Formats: sequence, structure tokens, C-alpha cells
Amino acid sequence: MATIKDVATKAGVTVTTVSRVFNNRGYISDATRKKVLQAMEELNYRPNELARSFYKNRSNIIGLIVPTVSNPFFGQLATCIENFAYDNKYKILICNSNLDQAKEKEYVEMLKSNKVDGIIMGSHTLDVEEFKNLDYPIVTFDRKIYDFPFIRSDNYKGGELATELLIQKGCKKLAHICNNLELNMLGNKRTEAFVDVAGKYGVQTVMIETDTIGFNRQGNDLAIQNMFEKHPDIDGVFVSSDFIAYSVMNICTMSGRKIPDDVKLVGYDDIFLGSLVKPYLTTIHQPIETMAQCAVQTIFNQIEGIRPNVDNTFPVHLVERETT
Amino acid sequence: MATIKDVATKAGVTVTTVSRVFNNRGYISDATRKKVLQAMEELNYRPNELARSFYKNRSNIIGLIVPTVSNPFFGQLATCIENFAYDNKYKILICNSNLDQAKEKEYVEMLKSNKVDGIIMGSHTLDVEEFKNLDYPIVTFDRKIYDFPFIRSDNYKGGELATELLIQKGCKKLAHICNNLELNMLGNKRTEAFVDVAGKYGVQTVMIETDTIGFNRQGNDLAIQNMFEKHPDIDGVFVSSDFIAYSVMNICTMSGRKIPDDVKLVGYDDIFLGSLVKPYLTTIHQPIETMAQCAVQTIFNQIEGIRPNVDNTFPVHLVERETT
Repeated sequence: MATIKDVATKAGVTVTTVSRVFNNRGYISDATRKKVLQAMEELNYRPNELARSFYKNRSNIIGLIVPTVSNPFFGQLATCIENFAYDNKYKILICNSNLDQAKEKEYVEMLKSNKVDGIIMGSHTLDVEEFKNLDYPIVTFDRKIYDFPFIRSDNYKGGELATELLIQKGCKKLAHICNNLELNMLGNKRTEAFVDVAGKYGVQTVMIETDTIGFNRQGNDLAIQNMFEKHPDIDGVFVSSDFIAYSVMNICTMSGRKIPDDVKLVGYDDIFLGSLVKPYLTTIHQPIETMAQCAVQTIFNQIEGIRPNVDNTFPVHLVERETT
Repeated sequence: MATIKDVATKAGVTVTTVSRVFNNRGYISDATRKKVLQAMEELNYRPNELARSFYKNRSNIIGLIVPTVSNPFFGQLATCIENFAYDNKYKILICNSNLDQAKEKEYVEMLKSNKVDGIIMGSHTLDVEEFKNLDYPIVTFDRKIYDFPFIRSDNYKGGELATELLIQKGCKKLAHICNNLELNMLGNKRTEAFVDVAGKYGVQTVMIETDTIGFNRQGNDLAIQNMFEKHPDIDGVFVSSDFIAYSVMNICTMSGRKIPDDVKLVGYDDIFLGSLVKPYLTTIHQPIETMAQCAVQTIFNQIEGIRPNVDNTFPVHLVERETT
């Protein structure tokens, strides 16, 4: 690989002159500038940005921790975050925690040591204590930690809309499938709304908790199967993630339950699958792109010393399709 | 943020001593070591890995360029690559090219300047010329560029298996939907096999090319719709990606074609969706996890000066499910 010295030799100038051209500093004649640029090009010389960022203490990299990008919601979120970061000359270091506490911790340490310019936390199994000493730009997704700014959709409203729709459609016994509530995610408000609305209308309810990422296919399928065996009269299901809604659809088909005739189904997120695979999924739409943009902007604001909004709550709306 | 000087002051030792403890070099008494470590902890001091990697010229970061992780195939691939890299203390800098040539080029430049330790290219719209001066560890997915090592599944075999199955099942007029063939991907062998097998059996064929990532939903849907309108007697479809197979399924349902009774369908990849959404998709299985592992290992080998295999071809097999 060519060094700055090689460039200087080839151009017949000093290293200082090359450095001046490169950094656009000091007086350089047009002829000299041209000679240096030509030498740089011929030698395919790249200024070492790693070294430069060391000096200016800026990596232009943002760490993104999610459970796994192979979950379509996080795949879409990561893509939107990456697109917006790219437009602003930032790159994304992606970390799949698999909701493994040890891995998540190691990643936080790694990102700290690597001096990324900020962390977007879309996965949180860590004890809150672990975050106490994080002293730089951070924003969380769907979890409140200390005073860190957080991004969420209007989870309570979403839960209300979903549950009310099922009741309006005549469902008499509702099931709700949600994340592990112990993880204390802001998304738990979806469940709170479900309980409130069902209580208000006096409708019978069943609840099951799954792991958050919904990648334990076997475990989830089994839990859903058991639920229908124990409560064969369930006629409406609100699932707090679209991805797991597909497991419900699957179990229903296998057990001869027709959607929406026998069981009505509402998801949450509005991932692209909802309008790709038949029957199209009724769901609560979160504005994933806008939320991703806000997450990146919140990191930028902190980098630039602008006080970010702490509570960034985005409106949701019901998208009624074919499963209700 | 605490500096090495702060640690030295707090521990009552010199900066050199702190550095020695940190780098495990030179003689340090246990008492001093303990004092320094305690000060580091109390001040939450992190050695600056960015600076260290500058000195040892190693970033422990691998760049991964894919069209977009929101395509489930690349989402799964990225996850597998990240998992394997993580186990080996490497991180993944993820770049979604969106198959935009300008973006891809900018990313390659960015990765070069950032001194990543290697690049895994899963997206290639660039002219081969652009790669001529890349002088460090690289591995490509499904494309051959110069002598760079490449990873692929046995595309020709996969195309054979898919086409033969459709013919065995009695299909008389076959459609094939594939990537833009001009991109000159190794996956084009799937199409070659389709043409060969259909020719051998004297079966009528129709072919359409889509963009590679299959994210131009509207465009793809329209092309598939037109295809069925122009050739209403198509009774078998081999799609070179599972993801686009779902568009075919969708259009078939909308136009009243039953799968597999009226139209039989075979995909390629074996993404998780195939066994999640009914009807389960018949497809050609690529060993995504093993291929991901091989990609990372190929970078590691090059870093360590071990000559990597150039041609890394992985066997495929037919997974027959409900769409044939």
C-alpha cells in the first residue's frame, strides 16, 4: 500500500507539501497541487481515515444493537437507520445481541472501546446498572433507561385500536400474545391497553408471553398450539408483533381454523410481509422510517451538543386488511 | 471522559506505569497493579481501541456490502456472518447498497479509507474495473471478480433440481423468474440449468428478469401479472429467489390460480419464511450459515497470509413442501 512518502517521492515534493494538499491548508501552487493529486491517483493512495479519526476523535460510526436483523422488523429498522446515517456520512456497526445478556454487554464494551460516536439500543436485556457509566450519545428503542432519550410508537393507543377492533368485530374471547413482560419494554403498554379495553367491555381474555425476538419458532408455536387446545373458543388474537402473528396464522391453518371467519387476528409493526403474503395482515402501523430517522438525528444532536428530546413518541394507526 | 493521565493521578503513579499495566509489559508490583486497575474502574477508563488499532493497523472490523438487510435472505446472511465474526472478536460494518452503483462505490471507498480488515461483497453492480486496485482481503458472494475468492451455492444443480421437479409433476408450460442477467451473477447458472432442462424435455418456457433485490414490489408484481395475462396456461414457475416467489404466490391468489393445483411453484434460497407462511414453499436449500462462515473464514485466512480457496461452492438440495 502506498504511503504519503511514496506520493511525495513520485511528485518530487516534500511530505509536508503532500499533507498540505491533502488537508487543503497553506499556499500550494496549482501546478504542485496537480502533480501531487496525480501521484496520489497513480499510486492509489488513500489517506488513512482511521488515523485521522484518531486525531480528531471521531469515528463517524454509530453502533446499532438489535436482537437480530433476521427478524424482519429489525431488518427494516436497520435498513432505514443505515440509509439515513449514510446520507449524513455516517456508517453503522451492527450488533445482533440475540437477546443474550452476555453478548449485549460485550457489545456495549466493544462499542465503547471502539469509540463509536453513539449507540442506538434496540435490544435491552441488560440490567439498568450496566448503563450507568455510559457517558456518550445514546438513544434507546422502546425502553426507558435513566434520562436517555427514547424512541417509541404510541404503544397504548396501538393496543387500544387493536383490541377495540376485535371487540367491534364481535369477538367474545380474546387472546393476547406479547413479549416477556419482565423485560420492562415500553411496548408493554400495548398489553396494558389490551387489559384495559377488554376489561371495559367485559370480554374474556387469555395471555401468553413469548421471548422478544420471536425466533424461538418451536417454542412459540408450541405455546400458541397449547393456547388453542386449552381455549378452543378463542375467536380473536392481538399479537404485539407482526412476525409472531404469522406463527398464529400458521397454527390456525394447521388446526383447521379459518382466518378471519373463525379467528380474527391483529398484529403490530406493519412490516412489509403484511401486504406480501395472503391473507394480508391487519395490523397497527408504526412509522418505522421516521422513527429510524429520529434515532439517528438524536445521536447527531447529542454529538453537536444540542439537547435532544427525551420522549420521542410517534403516532400509530390501524391498517385493516384481511385477517379481521 | 477519563484519560490515562487522570488514572495516573488517581493511582498516584506515572502515565508510563498505567500504560505498562494496561499493556501487561514490564515489571509492576501486585500492589501497584491493583491500585491502577482500581483507578481505571473508578474512573470508568477505557483504553482507546481506535488508537490502538491505528498503531497495530488492525481494526477488527469487516465490511459487509449487501443490497439490503430488509430482504430476508440478506438479513439471514448478515446475521450468520455477524455471529461467526463476533465469535472471533470481529465486528461487522454493514452497508446496504440498494444496488445503487454510486452508493456501492462510495461504500467501497469508505471501507478502504476506514481500514477495515476485509470486505465481503454480497452486492455487485460496479464495473469490474473499480475493483482493480483493491489490494486487501476480499471475498465475493455469487459473483466472480478477478481472482478474488468467491462463495456460491451449486447454482446449476439447484436450477436442474427445480426444473426437473416441475416437469416430473406434469407441468407443460414453465415460467422462470430471475435476476437481471446483465449483472453477470454466478446465480445466472440457475437460469442456464432451467433452459437446458426445459430444452431437454421439450417443454415450453417463458422468462422474465427482475431487479436483483426484489424490493421493487410494484414493478415485480406488474411483470408477474403481465406474464400470467399473456400466458394464462403457465402451470409451473421456478423463481430464482424465495422472496420473489411470494410475489408469484400473491398474484396467483389474486387471479384465482390455486397453488399447487393450477400452478406449481419452486423458489431458491430456503429462507425462514418458507416454513412459516402457508402454503409452505418448495425450494432449493442453500446452506446460508455454512456459506456465511466460509466467507468470514476466507477473510481471516487472507489476513493471516493463508492462501484461501478461490472457488467455494456449496451443495444444494431440494426441499419439497406444499407448493408443488
